[in-house]
Amino acid sequence: MKLIIGNKNYSSWSLRPWLLLATHKLAFDEERIPLDEPDTKARILEASEAGKVPVLKDGDLTVWDSLAICEYVSEKYLDGRGWPQDLAARAEARAVSAEMHSGLFAIRGQMPMNCRATGRRVPMTPELENEIARVDRLWSDCRAKYSAGGPWLFGDFSIADCMFAPVTSRFATYGVSLSDRAREYQQQVLNSAPMQDWIRAGSEETEIVQADEAGA
Amino acid sequence: MKLIIGNKNYSSWSLRPWLLLATHKLAFDEERIPLDEPDTKARILEASEAGKVPVLKDGDLTVWDSLAICEYVSEKYLDGRGWPQDLAARAEARAVSAEMHSGLFAIRGQMPMNCRATGRRVPMTPELENEIARVDRLWSDCRAKYSAGGPWLFGDFSIADCMFAPVTSRFATYGVSLSDRAREYQQQVLNSAPMQDWIRAGSEETEIVQADEAGA
Ligand SMILES: N[C@@H](CCC(=O)N[C@@H](CS)C(=O)NCC(=O)O)C(=O)O
Ligand SMILES: N[C@@H](CCC(=O)N[C@@H](CS)C(=O)NCC(=O)O)C(=O)O
Repeated sequence: MKLIIGNKNYSSWSLRPWLLLATHKLAFDEERIPLDEPDTKARILEASEAGKVPVLKDGDLTVWDSLAICEYVSEKYLDGRGWPQDLAARAEARAVSAEMHSGLFAIRGQMPMNCRATGRRVPMTPELENEIARVDRLWSDCRAKYSAGGPWLFGDFSIADCMFAPVTSRFATYGVSLSDRAREYQQQVLNSAPMQDWIRAGSEETEIVQADEAGA
Repeated sequence: MKLIIGNKNYSSWSLRPWLLLATHKLAFDEERIPLDEPDTKARILEASEAGKVPVLKDGDLTVWDSLAICEYVSEKYLDGRGWPQDLAARAEARAVSAEMHSGLFAIRGQMPMNCRATGRRVPMTPELENEIARVDRLWSDCRAKYSAGGPWLFGDFSIADCMFAPVTSRFATYGVSLSDRAREYQQQVLNSAPMQDWIRAGSEETEIVQADEAGA
């Protein structure tokens, strides 16, 4: 398998499937296409007609989109262990993942992932406050419900944790206060070895994506 | 099962899981919450903390988000037949579905689904043109590749067809020209009995959502 990703410092979508592969110690090559450079669009389009990273190449097969890649990897290489084994928990995990995948636009737009921006603050807006409260509740509720199974959102590590990993980083960078349960979960993600590797690699990158340099 | 939906005339996300259930003739109740009314938000929030329709209730379980609902229904009631049976085709079907779920913002924003707006035209923008071309190519390529298996995107009817169904309606309403293959596929969706039922019901609704009344 080859996973094509953007800058580790900025590409929140790339982090998601990367974290699934890395946490499960699956073997894969990595190709990095820095975003926002003159040849970025052409290079991504060569990899996938959808024109976005991440993209997974597995033999002849091209799978694009973070969530679709995670589903594929779970089916093909993890015997379905990408999701909770219980049907109802799996439905809930897919719902929270889809909510992140298709929404939470204020967090995504006003708090761009930027591993190097520790200590910066962005202006609060009502939309941002609402979405932060929603994520806090979502994490806390999942942790309350599934804590017996392990320290992740649904007990064992799952694709839902991958989907929210960039948000744990954003909340740390921009100093967002969380409830105790949500903060504990945030630390669980941020302290995991693959996440530490990703953040370290992002910090060492030198390219700047101006649009993602928010806050002061 | 109870599926909670918005107005049939406007709620493109609601159409997606509704079409999966209806096409497979699964038994379900329907609850309609008209959008953009004074009590809309409160009624939706009572059904789901995520605050959006569609929402599926199945016994004690609440599943929100169109894509997550489709995944759940496929697993629980269709023995996985919501997706193509071949692993590679399934990965591709999930990728196109995820692309629709998380993107194509110009189509979604500038061409709101509005079953009653036949004959209206919206201004073209470069983003809209690009996205229309992308969808045309995507439909044509899928049809070229999977036509032996049946008349849908991946041969047999799948969740990918549900995800794009609102776009077939928008392209018809706003008079978008398509390549032959893409137009054939569009007609396949629009002429299906469940889709005809949905459109008829939408046309008979009387509420107006001003934000979705685009074009002239
Ligand atoms: N829905 C996609 C979104 C991917 C996405 O937006 N990727 C960004 C980088 S994080 C990208 O490729 N941007 C480059 C561009 O649009 O030219 C996914 O989940 O993978
Ligand atoms: N990602 C969600 C999007 C759902 C969505 O945006 N639903 C709209 C209606 S089509 C809604 O509930 N709007 C009401 C509101 O935001 O108050 C899904 O796929 O179900």
